[in-house]
Amino acid sequence: MAMKQEESSRTRRARDVAAWHDEADVVVVGFGAAGACTAIEAAETGADVLVLERSGGGGGTSAISGGLLYMGGGTPVQQACGYEDSAEEMFRFLMAALGPEPDEAKIRLFCEHSVSHFHWLESHGVPFKRSFYPEPGLEAPTDDCLVFSGGEDGYPFDRIAQPAPRAHKPQYPAAAGGFLMQKLVAATERSGAKIVCDARTDALVVEDDGRVTGIVARHDGRERFVRARRGVVLTAGGFIKNEEMVAKHQPRIAACSFKLGVDGDDGRAIRMAMAAGAETIRMDAAEVALPLTPPRRLVRGIVVNRHGQRFINEDTYYGRVGQEALLRHDGHVYLIVDNAIYERNAIGFEATFVEETIEELERSVGLPEGSLQATVQLYNRFAVRGEDPVFHKGTALLQPLVSPPFAAIDCRPDKVLWATFTLGGLHTRTTGEVLDPDGGEIAGLYAAGRTTSGIAAYGYCSGISLGDATFFGREAGRNAATTGRGDKA
Amino acid sequence: MAMKQEESSRTRRARDVAAWHDEADVVVVGFGAAGACTAIEAAETGADVLVLERSGGGGGTSAISGGLLYMGGGTPVQQACGYEDSAEEMFRFLMAALGPEPDEAKIRLFCEHSVSHFHWLESHGVPFKRSFYPEPGLEAPTDDCLVFSGGEDGYPFDRIAQPAPRAHKPQYPAAAGGFLMQKLVAATERSGAKIVCDARTDALVVEDDGRVTGIVARHDGRERFVRARRGVVLTAGGFIKNEEMVAKHQPRIAACSFKLGVDGDDGRAIRMAMAAGAETIRMDAAEVALPLTPPRRLVRGIVVNRHGQRFINEDTYYGRVGQEALLRHDGHVYLIVDNAIYERNAIGFEATFVEETIEELERSVGLPEGSLQATVQLYNRFAVRGEDPVFHKGTALLQPLVSPPFAAIDCRPDKVLWATFTLGGLHTRTTGEVLDPDGGEIAGLYAAGRTTSGIAAYGYCSGISLGDATFFGREAGRNAATTGRGDKA
Repeated sequence: MAMKQEESSRTRRARDVAAWHDEADVVVVGFGAAGACTAIEAAETGADVLVLERSGGGGGTSAISGGLLYMGGGTPVQQACGYEDSAEEMFRFLMAALGPEPDEAKIRLFCEHSVSHFHWLESHGVPFKRSFYPEPGLEAPTDDCLVFSGGEDGYPFDRIAQPAPRAHKPQYPAAAGGFLMQKLVAATERSGAKIVCDARTDALVVEDDGRVTGIVARHDGRERFVRARRGVVLTAGGFIKNEEMVAKHQPRIAACSFKLGVDGDDGRAIRMAMAAGAETIRMDAAEVALPLTPPRRLVRGIVVNRHGQRFINEDTYYGRVGQEALLRHDGHVYLIVDNAIYERNAIGFEATFVEETIEELERSVGLPEGSLQATVQLYNRFAVRGEDPVFHKGTALLQPLVSPPFAAIDCRPDKVLWATFTLGGLHTRTTGEVLDPDGGEIAGLYAAGRTTSGIAAYGYCSGISLGDATFFGREAGRNAATTGRGDKA
Repeated sequence: MAMKQEESSRTRRARDVAAWHDEADVVVVGFGAAGACTAIEAAETGADVLVLERSGGGGGTSAISGGLLYMGGGTPVQQACGYEDSAEEMFRFLMAALGPEPDEAKIRLFCEHSVSHFHWLESHGVPFKRSFYPEPGLEAPTDDCLVFSGGEDGYPFDRIAQPAPRAHKPQYPAAAGGFLMQKLVAATERSGAKIVCDARTDALVVEDDGRVTGIVARHDGRERFVRARRGVVLTAGGFIKNEEMVAKHQPRIAACSFKLGVDGDDGRAIRMAMAAGAETIRMDAAEVALPLTPPRRLVRGIVVNRHGQRFINEDTYYGRVGQEALLRHDGHVYLIVDNAIYERNAIGFEATFVEETIEELERSVGLPEGSLQATVQLYNRFAVRGEDPVFHKGTALLQPLVSPPFAAIDCRPDKVLWATFTLGGLHTRTTGEVLDPDGGEIAGLYAAGRTTSGIAAYGYCSGISLGDATFFGREAGRNAATTGRGDKA
């Protein structure tokens, strides 16, 4: 029971707080990309800012990511690389790719101010090389910047919006999440925000009228009460590292071997807010990546489910392939290739079964009799003409499977790497205000980043998390800083 | 803003309550099947019980349902009809059919006490004829009782547990939900519970320590504070009639034409509990029925998605077909039959396209070239031998599609009736205690029925809602009645 008590995220009453150990206008909980941008913007708006980070330093999950930021509408990098884009095309793409029913107001704001957000990041020390890298989906292994990261140039999106690459990687010769966070931590320090690390926030402090006016943190082994004169902003990540929450909200992703996050992604900030009456939405939403590529040539093969059926254009964003494969086909999928296509996948996927005919391969894999044969026959019939009437894979990657031997790569979650993280969380306005289930705001409480349900309602593209976290972190920081100053109606 | 204020489900502080207008040991919010059974059990346990119902009388969604109750393990009806069953077989079936990751403790309790629950219902005036009705899935149009209602006797469940029919309909010559509720309302009245109708509960009343000790209701145009000495039990239905909540939690079901519920299914009880810090789980879960049958002969045809592919054994429970069709195939499905099978469906599904060949039908429907032809060819190849190696439809309903003309029934949600209701809600223990996100209970607060996430985590069978509501209503009632009396540790 003592354990339980200590771990509770129930709210504390302001009337019971004997003394405040510290105070600030804006208290930011968590110091990843969202927290840093919240703090910078709040400080630059004139607020006195305190950032509390549970681990030993700034970074969070942002620092272990690839560092891609989804931005568009005609950024200097897009222009330098010869890609035309507009806020409207970006909006149309994101509304289609991030749904069903994504938050239209958030996506609208995100797109309209994307170019200025790019400039804001550069002006705060994050450099972007004016270059394009042709392998889509993932950050470049070089210091190049721009990639296609959401299947923009393939079916069905190329029919919905003018394709443009929009994922921007900071100029660093590898995965750039750590580099990005170095720059954002430095900018936060320059902004004048006070940063306290090794301080785990346990609960919100609430007035009798429901207004959030502080937090309780554990620091140096003691409980500290910190008053927030204008607002508390929760930017403490998602809940992918909380097994119980995953089991309760999206049990299917538990099978994925790579749960992308740091220990702090235990959903605590979400639970703290729920204790104050906040609403959570889309808690079942998750990104699920099945990284078939690189090399890109492998998607000349076909991905089939346990019924031997294809279910998607294999050349689309691998995060879409993974979501469909896990959430609609129970992760029971195989990549089928022939000798002309096969090559060892960059992260180690290897042929599980190799046979001289499709019929034998079907039997070895244990697919239903006739199923894979029918699928390959139909696929080949049109692939020879560069067509794929069923799933619309692009002509460039259409190639009939005719060169023996044929191979199947068993892609089930217990066989190869699948990467996942949660997308659901607190329901917020574009301003970062946290909402209750009736649609009213919880006064004094804001959130951004993976603690919230952001622009990715269900669908996803690489770069959305950092794009969303940095952009709406700034919105939350500016709005929290102006609360109670009469700047708002 | 006045409107907003009135509609808020935010908690009220007990310290602010000037006077209590009424009080009882146990206050039950909602008077459907869950509320009635809660009230009866609480009253019979010795508590003074008050039931508050928002509409003009008892019934709720239970009263407009078919009246099926899922029970088994060897009930007198099962025995009289010659079906062997055991709590263990029932448990194995439900764990497989209601997942992924259903609440094992709840299912275990539900199965172990199912026969005694049957006797409890009979002893409280609900009669069941000792008879079996052979058309599965739905309640009998006669006064017969027992039906297969979850695909127990087909793939994959017949390989997991000994098949037995378990949905029991009270003895009434049509849909029996209204009849069931007449009997349960009468039993509630006999129990001594006080019933107040036209009383809409707006919010919970909470002590400074978080304990729920009452509710605020609107009755006769005035706000009334009602004190609950031992506990408040929320049994006020789900949220299928709340468009905003559906859009936030499971936008895909918005397309279904028949949202099974009454106006009270607006999620208010769920929101009231969230305001007190309760956790909601599986808010995306929903039952979705595509009633292809009756007549049963129609599932001799095949159901295909927009890629011309089959995706399920068509002879399984139509609620499983509907869930798979909507949630995994976007509701874009067609039933394909030939002249030997076709007959107008009981609720009016008619042939949308009729052609002399499968190739022409494929073209008329607009399916990808070659796709339906490949599917029918593979299906027919094995159906002539009474086999279905891909989806395992039962031999009795396997029949090759060879008699022209061929027809496609367009089953998209805007074309035919789809029925849906929500399955997610408050996270509760088997005792009905409402939990917070840390797994601690909210003292004084209980819930049952569709206000909670019950035994149907994601999957469903007809009769689960009333089975769950009546059984766990009783558990909640008994536990709330004994709270604070020293009967519990």
